[in-house]
Amino acid sequence: MKSARIGMIGCGSMSRYHGKMFGPITGARVVALCDPNQQNLDRYQREIFDPLDQHPPQFADYREMLAKVDLDGVMIVTPHTQHFEQASAALAAGRHVLVEKPMVVTVEHARKLIAHAKRAKRVVSVAFPGSFAEEFAYIRGLLGRGELGEVVAVQGFVAQRWLTTTRGAWRQDPKLSGGGFAYDSGAHLLHAMLFLSDLRPTEVFAWTNHRGAPVDILTAVMMRFANGALGTANCCGEDVRGWDESITVSGTKGTVRTSIHGNRLEQWDAQGKLVRYPRVEPVPSLHQNFVDCILGRAQTPCPPVWGLRQALLMEALYESASTSKVVKVRPE
Amino acid sequence: MKSARIGMIGCGSMSRYHGKMFGPITGARVVALCDPNQQNLDRYQREIFDPLDQHPPQFADYREMLAKVDLDGVMIVTPHTQHFEQASAALAAGRHVLVEKPMVVTVEHARKLIAHAKRAKRVVSVAFPGSFAEEFAYIRGLLGRGELGEVVAVQGFVAQRWLTTTRGAWRQDPKLSGGGFAYDSGAHLLHAMLFLSDLRPTEVFAWTNHRGAPVDILTAVMMRFANGALGTANCCGEDVRGWDESITVSGTKGTVRTSIHGNRLEQWDAQGKLVRYPRVEPVPSLHQNFVDCILGRAQTPCPPVWGLRQALLMEALYESASTSKVVKVRPE
Amino acid sequence: MKSARIGMIGCGSMSRYHGKMFGPITGARVVALCDPNQQNLDRYQREIFDPLDQHPPQFADYREMLAKVDLDGVMIVTPHTQHFEQASAALAAGRHVLVEKPMVVTVEHARKLIAHAKRAKRVVSVAFPGSFAEEFAYIRGLLGRGELGEVVAVQGFVAQRWLTTTRGAWRQDPKLSGGGFAYDSGAHLLHAMLFLSDLRPTEVFAWTNHRGAPVDILTAVMMRFANGALGTANCCGEDVRGWDESITVSGTKGTVRTSIHGNRLEQWDAQGKLVRYPRVEPVPSLHQNFVDCILGRAQTPCPPVWGLRQALLMEALYESASTSKVVKVRPE
Amino acid sequence: MKSARIGMIGCGSMSRYHGKMFGPITGARVVALCDPNQQNLDRYQREIFDPLDQHPPQFADYREMLAKVDLDGVMIVTPHTQHFEQASAALAAGRHVLVEKPMVVTVEHARKLIAHAKRAKRVVSVAFPGSFAEEFAYIRGLLGRGELGEVVAVQGFVAQRWLTTTRGAWRQDPKLSGGGFAYDSGAHLLHAMLFLSDLRPTEVFAWTNHRGAPVDILTAVMMRFANGALGTANCCGEDVRGWDESITVSGTKGTVRTSIHGNRLEQWDAQGKLVRYPRVEPVPSLHQNFVDCILGRAQTPCPPVWGLRQALLMEALYESASTSKVVKVRPE
Repeated sequence: MKSARIGMIGCGSMSRYHGKMFGPITGARVVALCDPNQQNLDRYQREIFDPLDQHPPQFADYREMLAKVDLDGVMIVTPHTQHFEQASAALAAGRHVLVEKPMVVTVEHARKLIAHAKRAKRVVSVAFPGSFAEEFAYIRGLLGRGELGEVVAVQGFVAQRWLTTTRGAWRQDPKLSGGGFAYDSGAHLLHAMLFLSDLRPTEVFAWTNHRGAPVDILTAVMMRFANGALGTANCCGEDVRGWDESITVSGTKGTVRTSIHGNRLEQWDAQGKLVRYPRVEPVPSLHQNFVDCILGRAQTPCPPVWGLRQALLMEALYESASTSKVVKVRPE
Repeated sequence: MKSARIGMIGCGSMSRYHGKMFGPITGARVVALCDPNQQNLDRYQREIFDPLDQHPPQFADYREMLAKVDLDGVMIVTPHTQHFEQASAALAAGRHVLVEKPMVVTVEHARKLIAHAKRAKRVVSVAFPGSFAEEFAYIRGLLGRGELGEVVAVQGFVAQRWLTTTRGAWRQDPKLSGGGFAYDSGAHLLHAMLFLSDLRPTEVFAWTNHRGAPVDILTAVMMRFANGALGTANCCGEDVRGWDESITVSGTKGTVRTSIHGNRLEQWDAQGKLVRYPRVEPVPSLHQNFVDCILGRAQTPCPPVWGLRQALLMEALYESASTSKVVKVRPE
Repeated sequence: MKSARIGMIGCGSMSRYHGKMFGPITGARVVALCDPNQQNLDRYQREIFDPLDQHPPQFADYREMLAKVDLDGVMIVTPHTQHFEQASAALAAGRHVLVEKPMVVTVEHARKLIAHAKRAKRVVSVAFPGSFAEEFAYIRGLLGRGELGEVVAVQGFVAQRWLTTTRGAWRQDPKLSGGGFAYDSGAHLLHAMLFLSDLRPTEVFAWTNHRGAPVDILTAVMMRFANGALGTANCCGEDVRGWDESITVSGTKGTVRTSIHGNRLEQWDAQGKLVRYPRVEPVPSLHQNFVDCILGRAQTPCPPVWGLRQALLMEALYESASTSKVVKVRPE
Repeated sequence: MKSARIGMIGCGSMSRYHGKMFGPITGARVVALCDPNQQNLDRYQREIFDPLDQHPPQFADYREMLAKVDLDGVMIVTPHTQHFEQASAALAAGRHVLVEKPMVVTVEHARKLIAHAKRAKRVVSVAFPGSFAEEFAYIRGLLGRGELGEVVAVQGFVAQRWLTTTRGAWRQDPKLSGGGFAYDSGAHLLHAMLFLSDLRPTEVFAWTNHRGAPVDILTAVMMRFANGALGTANCCGEDVRGWDESITVSGTKGTVRTSIHGNRLEQWDAQGKLVRYPRVEPVPSLHQNFVDCILGRAQTPCPPVWGLRQALLMEALYESASTSKVVKVRPE
């Protein structure tokens, strides 16, 4: 069987993580690397490919890689504001696209990318780990079958030692990141709030605090959903803890609590009893799913409409934060 | 040594709980009961006093009890909107007052009650269990010594099967309760956010959803504190769970997580390490402290200024909820 | 449909517990009570039947109950040494039997009871909660399908504040109990070691310490199983804790840890990874199963051979404890 | 202030761990390495010293190191049966000794080493991490002050994927290890049973199972202590889990549960209540303590008498395992 040939756009630390994840997948092969920074390329080669005695070609410019290498798909792991251009180019070159979160950082880019993908008849998959986790699939199954009843409240938080650990990195440069902690780790939480409630926010209220940094470090958000449910999110990028987070979805017939990446689950039934052995089914990994999408045998659980939904939410969020007023979320 | 003689105003289920707690305290004695509902009086007598072979006098009207019984203090466990009048009358009669949360439900009542207490030279103590818990005392000790650094984020939630279990009870009658879930269980969370951060909110934003009930069932709240710290609170009164809640205070040098009633504690130090054996010192119980206050040998950790702070917060919260706008919290 | 008519032999506190459990089962009805102690009968009537406005006949002598009441089955909840005679009489009267653990306290009684049941063509079911728990069924499923590989080690403990809480009660009278803590709470652990390993012990070594009581309070046990696997059990009847226990079964392909009553489960797979969502299937309760057995639509997961196995083990255990030598377990 | 100059005898993986631990200690310096295997020396140099740009001399023979380098102390991290000779030589050369567990593997060696240390007026400290943990110090404080009452039961287990991971290594060569899993990871558990109960075992019963390996893989042990308390230990060296263990000490006034290395603690008081905030005081690390011993400002919590006690216990354990009879532990 043909292997899916994948090119990496962006070879920093998250990209190396993804490279390792692609490794054991039968039918997948990373066949080209691209990064303007030669040190990133060298380290990627050393850590991922040297042990396998493989030497994929390296490129400084992704356009050159797209032009010269026969690829089935690309994975994009670059600063947020570059995603749109790179993904669009890859689609134009007929490649499938797996793109790190956030998909893009403006609503217009989101709409255009959806159109590009449609025209190119190629898959765009947004790499939120949560959306590819068995726990998220399970919760959406509960929602779909009505087993949580009507969702009435969603609340979550993400706390991370982020202000100091990303200081000076592109993540705190708004031209590259499109936003601060709320658009980085916060993106996982905010996406999960929509994905796990299956509700659309109609109004958003937010405050941010930059704590002297060039981007938002603290963000408090409230959402009013279409059915009147209320959501709260607290993104604290100046915590002493390396990482802590949780999301809870309360419905009239059940409540679930999980990580914003999946990986753990508590469920309470209509009587409020903890469900001791929830029937969570394994699902293919993010990386396996992308290969399956390329090979035409699966669909992504996180298509680009989720990138649009996040862009719409973030647009409202930042406008609210700058005006201290409720902002309506534009329709999809 | 003289025993503190205590009269109970309100003899429902929470009052019986308090009656049991007073039982084992040397130097305290409940010597009079008052409730307009004879069934409450009967059940109180049967459950608390029959086993002790005690038969304190019973009253339907607290004014009569105040007039006829030689009391040192009263505990008020009645619908929220009655607290002010009852506490004021008790102070006027020279009694110390231990009052269930919320102390009162308007700012004006809070200010007046503080004045009454001052004039009467009597203690008013607000019965938030958290404020009398060793964990809260410990956290305030950390704050006072600067061991948490500057507080930057406070986040919490309280979820309870409340809509159905209090349906038809006074708690859902706004004339008696002054508000809904946010003013009942929510009051613990919102108080804890102020008490455990030692910050004053300057602005509040809130949405509520009555879910068809006469009072708020779902409440989402954000607070901006004087130093720019951000707080989020999610009060979900329509949860399948009997009770679940948590509050986290993140400072620049440490983070703490506890229950809104105390009773558990996680603490992370400046390096983000979980503090394995925090030095939490035991403190006298809520009931012991009231007796100690009466006997002049202690002060309450929860004086009526906390009742005023809550009233100021709730005033802003409900105004925001009704206008969907940010509301400034009036100064103390 | 006909209801299963059940008579209770022994109406103390454990019996009342069982009475409550039979309550909600469709197709089951407790129709007669028997206890030589009128206070037990009165309390049973008051707590279980008065709320239902039922008044089943009461007997001091179980023989009279067996003779006068049309019963399908009996539940025996009496001092251990009485089980054999009562169960035998019930079988002779054509009744099915659900008997509290231990089934009997001698090997000869166990063999005879098995013969009686066979002759009477009636069910005898031994009421170990663990053996009726979904976790035990799940673990035996793993064992049966070879998913734990070969069991090599079994270890467990049970610790309880038992010395003081059963002082003066029949449980510390060897004529009634047949043994001490090891034959009371210990019986659950020791049974579980056989039931969850599906191994037969060939040799036993044990020490006991009476701690001044008429029966064993501390018991340390080792078992060598037929395949060479080793088991250790620590029964501590003089612990400050009300109750604590655990049992772990280690196989070459997996390890499981559960309570000696079921109700919780940890499982590690062949790679040593915790199995996050084990496929534990619900099973009928102990009480439902007895009714199902009576109605001929199920078999008991705990037939009397388990009573025999326990008797064989306990015989060897107590002989070892009195000789300080290894004792071979007699064959079934 | 003078630094303590330390030589490493044995430079395998555990030694590198210790080397890293000595790193941050002011007043300590590893100044010489010794290992017959040049690869071990190279890796030690590369991982520990290259980053510090230090190049301590290397030796293949510890006698040469002792002769040529001015040392205050040595740490011995070699196969168990070599400890005696190496420690004795170091003492003869006037060096203090920190020796990995087990100190030695025969009673006679233990007695001689104690005599050597006495004669040389040098410290021998046995490197059980547990004995240097704050939790162990705390528990021994409770014991010393009688806060656990009389210890009546001790139970523990250690389970590890050991059979396959140490196959072919010296740990499964009885000439080098002196025993199998029970003398390796089991040594921690068995030592902890004596150390945390402060009781001496008078009789031991044990079974072992080699599972086809040259040394014991499964060991079940029972101990009868001088006061009649009973101990059980289950050492399972063929578990799927990488590592799991626990030890519980039950006294008449309290129970404690900890890891066999310390690092966690549960304590129940005389009423059986979990002690929420035990007053565990920090203690110097194993490595800091050795430096403090060298500098004459501290004593070791784990002097060589503990090595003797373990040797006496293991002697009885292996004799019992080979005879299937109770063996009396020889007096100290």
